[in-house]
Amino acid sequence: MTTLTPTEPRVDAYPTRGVEAATITPRLDPVVHGDLRGPLEPEHLRTFEDTGVLVIPNLLSNKLVAALDDEVSALAEDDDVRSREEAVLEPGGGALRSLFAVHELDGLLGAFTKDHQLVRIARQLLGSDVYIHQSRINLKPGFRGKEFYWHSDFETWHAEDGMPRMRAVSASVLLTPNNPWNGPLLTMAGSHKWFTSCVGETPPEHFRESLRKQEIGVPDDDSLRELARRGQIQQALGPAGTVVFFECNVMHGSNGNISPDPRRNVFLVFNSVENALEEPFAAPAPRPEHIASRTFDPV
Amino acid sequence: MTTLTPTEPRVDAYPTRGVEAATITPRLDPVVHGDLRGPLEPEHLRTFEDTGVLVIPNLLSNKLVAALDDEVSALAEDDDVRSREEAVLEPGGGALRSLFAVHELDGLLGAFTKDHQLVRIARQLLGSDVYIHQSRINLKPGFRGKEFYWHSDFETWHAEDGMPRMRAVSASVLLTPNNPWNGPLLTMAGSHKWFTSCVGETPPEHFRESLRKQEIGVPDDDSLRELARRGQIQQALGPAGTVVFFECNVMHGSNGNISPDPRRNVFLVFNSVENALEEPFAAPAPRPEHIASRTFDPV
Repeated sequence: MTTLTPTEPRVDAYPTRGVEAATITPRLDPVVHGDLRGPLEPEHLRTFEDTGVLVIPNLLSNKLVAALDDEVSALAEDDDVRSREEAVLEPGGGALRSLFAVHELDGLLGAFTKDHQLVRIARQLLGSDVYIHQSRINLKPGFRGKEFYWHSDFETWHAEDGMPRMRAVSASVLLTPNNPWNGPLLTMAGSHKWFTSCVGETPPEHFRESLRKQEIGVPDDDSLRELARRGQIQQALGPAGTVVFFECNVMHGSNGNISPDPRRNVFLVFNSVENALEEPFAAPAPRPEHIASRTFDPV
Repeated sequence: MTTLTPTEPRVDAYPTRGVEAATITPRLDPVVHGDLRGPLEPEHLRTFEDTGVLVIPNLLSNKLVAALDDEVSALAEDDDVRSREEAVLEPGGGALRSLFAVHELDGLLGAFTKDHQLVRIARQLLGSDVYIHQSRINLKPGFRGKEFYWHSDFETWHAEDGMPRMRAVSASVLLTPNNPWNGPLLTMAGSHKWFTSCVGETPPEHFRESLRKQEIGVPDDDSLRELARRGQIQQALGPAGTVVFFECNVMHGSNGNISPDPRRNVFLVFNSVENALEEPFAAPAPRPEHIASRTFDPV
């Protein structure tokens, strides 16, 4: 005969989905974790702390940008790549829109995701060793680029991937110029200091739809209006080679792009090794490994 | 017995629609017509000549803007107004998106369309008396504002309304601030100096669809890429009360708007009385009077 020991109920620091009404509650975690030394100056850290975003223009050389962009183009044209599970294709044609888990590729791109400078910045912000939670390339075409609606990445990672706390940072590496009219990243400055819960249950295999068009995990109009009132909307702009670091919980999105200028980027998410994924907090099952890595080895 | 006299075939200065392939050909008309004196300085005229656009910040007082905006709000909430033929409603809900022929309304809005200052500027640019070819109010919501794809208004007015030559100017009167991220007017500087023809036949009653989403009368990707190469894309920005004049043939459009900030404007098209409409150049029948006025009385 076995004895059942009651298990401690898990603490959920940031309840969301299936809640009665959307709420905006204070963040419970630091923004800049610890005081590790690193490449960022105090002024950089202050900007990141205050706004949730840090834009570093021209962090990459033109040569490196060109080489990475060539590799992205080659991947986009490769039929084998387009048929992979890690590939997200455009609804109409078969054009490659995103490719996940590029940190596992051989070649320049895979090597770049462990780029010493980026990793050191991530370590400094997160105050610990880091691993790659998610990586992908995004190819956003000109003329018919679609908008991406407001969301906090952390809300999804917490609900659907089981990321317990806010201790992750994204790096968007611009391979093409981002100007005010080609659908650059928009953020609400300071919104990372609040947790904005979302109503609605997560359906099974939600990721298959949400990567194309997100509908669950989307804040309501009143919450967004309130966050925008608390802090200015900002555009993350810069030439190719710019890197935009943004905090995992900052409210962000992007408008569509009718301009002829495409937008391509490499997108990396660094998570603290002390913040490894658990079971999802508000979804029936974890998302696949290529969207939310459960290999927590430090880079 | 009647004698048939052969009629002179009509000259079409700007053939479009149903053509074999898109072409970009030089404009045959002046941009600034004649040398009438008026409120605009030589510098203004030069900007308009070069770019096809002239932004005049704060042309209207805050008081006038507030009064006009109140009237727009009242119209938007009026069920009788929403059921008129002149009203264009949002696809999903019944919210008012545009209301045409506001120059025929009583009240402040109707009076404003004959605003002395705007009319004098239009006369100066067009070198003659002017009449109102089209007028409307546009209510573009925040959060879910849709993009409007690239087009030349003249291409449509020529093909579908029978406007013979390029001698018209639009005035967009901003009732709310236009900032870089809430879907402001985008123009391709200098594109008004070229006529960009469009392939595809105009279907009957095309206006019923085209006012929501334009598909015919849209330039192809190669033409747009070439026009953008010839001249920089520009955003028309400014606080409420700003007036944006843009030449009838300048290539323009706007991105969507996920920001909470709505965009409302009064849109007026002045045409030279010497450029009155004829039969459409490339459509089975003229569009209705409220979209393209055939009352050519000077204001």
